[in-house]
Amino acid sequence: MPLRRSAALLAVLAACARAPLAPGPTPPEEAPRRAPAQDGVASYYGANFAGRRTASGERFDPRKLTAAHRELPFGTRVRVTNLANGRSVTVRINDRGPFAGGRLVDLSWEAARELDMLRSGVARVRLEVLAD
Amino acid sequence: MPLRRSAALLAVLAACARAPLAPGPTPPEEAPRRAPAQDGVASYYGANFAGRRTASGERFDPRKLTAAHRELPFGTRVRVTNLANGRSVTVRINDRGPFAGGRLVDLSWEAARELDMLRSGVARVRLEVLAD
Repeated sequence: MPLRRSAALLAVLAACARAPLAPGPTPPEEAPRRAPAQDGVASYYGANFAGRRTASGERFDPRKLTAAHRELPFGTRVRVTNLANGRSVTVRINDRGPFAGGRLVDLSWEAARELDMLRSGVARVRLEVLAD
Repeated sequence: MPLRRSAALLAVLAACARAPLAPGPTPPEEAPRRAPAQDGVASYYGANFAGRRTASGERFDPRKLTAAHRELPFGTRVRVTNLANGRSVTVRINDRGPFAGGRLVDLSWEAARELDMLRSGVARVRLEVLAD
């Protein structure tokens, strides 16, 4: 994640630059949390998975706003934006995947519906992890 | 397949009944083949399965007109009609399923698109097996 690294570096540099002037009470911890953004391809899964167990143990409900991601912790809230139309939706990670096809995230049918990507089947999206 | 068996039985009976009258040149083979119809719920699967092997060994392509059925032989052509809007599409069985949710058939994304059921996610359909 070069962006994250650069942002962190900038924050450190900024802190250093300020330090000699005034060692203020608000070091980096209070800086607004930078959500690491990832761009990639999303697809979705629907009724064919209804009722099956997700990797989190929860049953999959295609009408809920959830998603599968390979790494983000279960329960993480992520804002997903369809880069083709600007629509966005907040989903909760409750499953693992996608493991094929070079995609970044698999959304629930409901999330795909809100992003208006049911007809395209796939979409380029941006993921932003939301603070707890 | 009780329907198909009854149809065969009827054809045999009909042939027998006709036999004494005139052993015509058109025995059961020329009788119109009765496609056994099944009604049930369809869902679909899409890009999240793209490239994976189906039960027939063929790779799944969501843009092709295929379907998963628990019993019909691979290669069987089936007409699927969306009972909500009358649209129909012919698909080729190349996968096994659905194994959960009490559904009758899982269609490819393209088949679901042609039946205009992407937004509903599921639909009541009628399946009719087509003659080879």
